[in-house]
Amino acid sequence: MMAAALTTAELEQILVREFPQSSHLDLEIEQAGDMTARLRMPINDSQLRPGGTVSGPTLFWLADVGLYVAVMAMVGPKTQSVTTSITVNFLRLPSTAGLIAEVKLLKLGRRLAVGEVSLFSDGMADPVAHVTGTYALPPEA
Amino acid sequence: MMAAALTTAELEQILVREFPQSSHLDLEIEQAGDMTARLRMPINDSQLRPGGTVSGPTLFWLADVGLYVAVMAMVGPKTQSVTTSITVNFLRLPSTAGLIAEVKLLKLGRRLAVGEVSLFSDGMADPVAHVTGTYALPPEA
Amino acid sequence: MMAAALTTAELEQILVREFPQSSHLDLEIEQAGDMTARLRMPINDSQLRPGGTVSGPTLFWLADVGLYVAVMAMVGPKTQSVTTSITVNFLRLPSTAGLIAEVKLLKLGRRLAVGEVSLFSDGMADPVAHVTGTYALPPEA
Amino acid sequence: MMAAALTTAELEQILVREFPQSSHLDLEIEQAGDMTARLRMPINDSQLRPGGTVSGPTLFWLADVGLYVAVMAMVGPKTQSVTTSITVNFLRLPSTAGLIAEVKLLKLGRRLAVGEVSLFSDGMADPVAHVTGTYALPPEA
Repeated sequence: MMAAALTTAELEQILVREFPQSSHLDLEIEQAGDMTARLRMPINDSQLRPGGTVSGPTLFWLADVGLYVAVMAMVGPKTQSVTTSITVNFLRLPSTAGLIAEVKLLKLGRRLAVGEVSLFSDGMADPVAHVTGTYALPPEA
Repeated sequence: MMAAALTTAELEQILVREFPQSSHLDLEIEQAGDMTARLRMPINDSQLRPGGTVSGPTLFWLADVGLYVAVMAMVGPKTQSVTTSITVNFLRLPSTAGLIAEVKLLKLGRRLAVGEVSLFSDGMADPVAHVTGTYALPPEA
Repeated sequence: MMAAALTTAELEQILVREFPQSSHLDLEIEQAGDMTARLRMPINDSQLRPGGTVSGPTLFWLADVGLYVAVMAMVGPKTQSVTTSITVNFLRLPSTAGLIAEVKLLKLGRRLAVGEVSLFSDGMADPVAHVTGTYALPPEA
Repeated sequence: MMAAALTTAELEQILVREFPQSSHLDLEIEQAGDMTARLRMPINDSQLRPGGTVSGPTLFWLADVGLYVAVMAMVGPKTQSVTTSITVNFLRLPSTAGLIAEVKLLKLGRRLAVGEVSLFSDGMADPVAHVTGTYALPPEA
């Protein structure tokens, strides 16, 4: 077990700076550290699609931010990190309830981090999407 | 060569209905049909990230819509189609110029369509991202 | 909880018929059913790469077969099922010990099954690769 | 246009050393350099599946080797390069004819190379699979 490099409050400050849109979204980092993270996000009308389901880019965004948070929680504020690839499998239509992201890092190397994210609609037992992603970490100064 | 099932004007009407957010985005379908599509989208401030680059979800969104347009152009308005998986490889930082999506369908079966999308910042020769995606088509009535 | 449609012995018989190469590989299905499966495979010299590590296609093969076994265990011998897409993230160099595949189905619909596989070298705590895959199931007769 | 760092004959020698199995496969590098490569491989019985089609791992293997060849042709014999992720979309059942891999590098950075591969059965116009993959390049000495 490794200690988290940043608290959830510090991580939320980084998010607001790096992802300015997130400040409108009431995104909450419930937990981050130990190679995992858990985020929660309410859904607003602009993220809905006809039929009352959450849009794909909203799912993508939450998974991407979730991986970023899980990595930053371990390595500190290396905001030069960039997503290099993401694969999303859409499993079920989300409800209009808030989204929960459960993030697990599969590898945290010096240069690459790889993680997976399960996305849930609040109150649904089965995930609405599964995401794997890779982050390139900046070289040591 | 197969004829397009829908004109670009008809496709833009479907987009406005199915992706209401797109009506704010001045998305333009330059061409659609023959297993390909080409879309163009200006970038506005809400899609930018610090440092002057386009956000990942914006790239994701344009690729997803591009695949949708290319499929609808071939099979008609089967708006029940759903994205089942998407893989994005981020290649270069986009500029703040508009985005261009070049879509090519690799397979159009009765039940599944698979395509790839190259995303460009207007004026850059090399792609900023490469996307492959799979769409599930609704069973015949 | 759903009962397994096939026993591990029945599944091993299907494998030998559908994947004739597997009969040389001493592949063992330790468990299958309830949306999961666990397989074990010894490594022989033809699967090694210089430096004493298992080749990528061997990892790919075991993950693909693992997903197939997990799906067959639930739906019965629908051997017309075909893999439609697979994403492999290579995490660590495998040792030359046997491989273990832990399979979990994320979705089992009428037409599509989606699952993830964690691959381990026997005796290593962290996975050597993570795989997500999609299977198209044949239409009902 | 960049000159190829290695000739096809030099690349075939590296393959035999790094992928010893390839020496049994009569793999032929038809072209490599300028961010592309083209490989050809006959199919033998051990690579077939019931029904007369080529196995998934064989397709995976050829795509992986094709990306490796395209990268080595540009950067020289950096045999410490490792595949970090691969996504395969299976499009059509291959015939039992030989396979052709058309490789195109999408990015060749200092640390990461990304490419795509279209796999064809000899004599079929449409691809049997489409592959994207990422290679991590070793740090400069």
